[in-house]
Amino acid sequence: MLTRIDHVGIACRDLEAKIAFYQSVFGLTVASMEVNEDQGVREAMLLVGAGPAGGSYLQLLEPLGSDTPVGRFLERRGEGVHHIGYGVANITAALAAIGATGVRLIDERPRHGSMGASIAFLHPADVGGVLTELVQAPDAGPQPGPGAGS
Amino acid sequence: MLTRIDHVGIACRDLEAKIAFYQSVFGLTVASMEVNEDQGVREAMLLVGAGPAGGSYLQLLEPLGSDTPVGRFLERRGEGVHHIGYGVANITAALAAIGATGVRLIDERPRHGSMGASIAFLHPADVGGVLTELVQAPDAGPQPGPGAGS
Repeated sequence: MLTRIDHVGIACRDLEAKIAFYQSVFGLTVASMEVNEDQGVREAMLLVGAGPAGGSYLQLLEPLGSDTPVGRFLERRGEGVHHIGYGVANITAALAAIGATGVRLIDERPRHGSMGASIAFLHPADVGGVLTELVQAPDAGPQPGPGAGS
Repeated sequence: MLTRIDHVGIACRDLEAKIAFYQSVFGLTVASMEVNEDQGVREAMLLVGAGPAGGSYLQLLEPLGSDTPVGRFLERRGEGVHHIGYGVANITAALAAIGATGVRLIDERPRHGSMGASIAFLHPADVGGVLTELVQAPDAGPQPGPGAGS
């Protein structure tokens, strides 16, 4: 079901400073930057490597405000790993299969994520304390239609 | 410098239960199980995907006791993501380059890690709260000699 580690999401307080750090220390390059109002973040995807199933990224997340999920995470735990995103070929089928095992779905239907992907989160309490995201790349199958992210 | 996300290390209390969970819910398979006395863990590597630079794994870590790094992590933060391991082609060169930027190295020299790899950790306080590991796969170049892990 899982095709790759699509990304590791890292919460940070200063996006530009953290991008500069990963560029200068680890030689990573920015593949995409965007604002996701729905998730309350400014974010950058830094390419780490790529395989046949797609790229693997470091996702740097700066909250748009303190009253957002990432803002609350920073207050509670400080900077650090926020979630893991795994690639899947068909996110709708994956959500149905995972939901059938009893794992609670934060998103019953896929919504719009980074770089045009369709994404959905699983409840961390049901995945051993790990906030887990499924990611279907934009060229890997049907996209959610208008309104699916609402 | 970084070639892939080699693994995400996840701290858990019951290794067998967590392996069974990831097998049944996500269809992952166990590539390796070992005890690392040096790091105070029993661990399993579950293959997520592979690219030209090597595999990407979920690494499940159960502490050998409460007075170990992962045991203390579990007491402090509960189950969840413990660290990220990135692939590098030459770990000795990578450590020298990273150390030169001022990031503190937990391991000045590579030591033995999962599945015959040479590994070294960087200080999380210097990497935005992320415990960061470098991983040179066993067939990717010279190995640390006897005693290098001491």
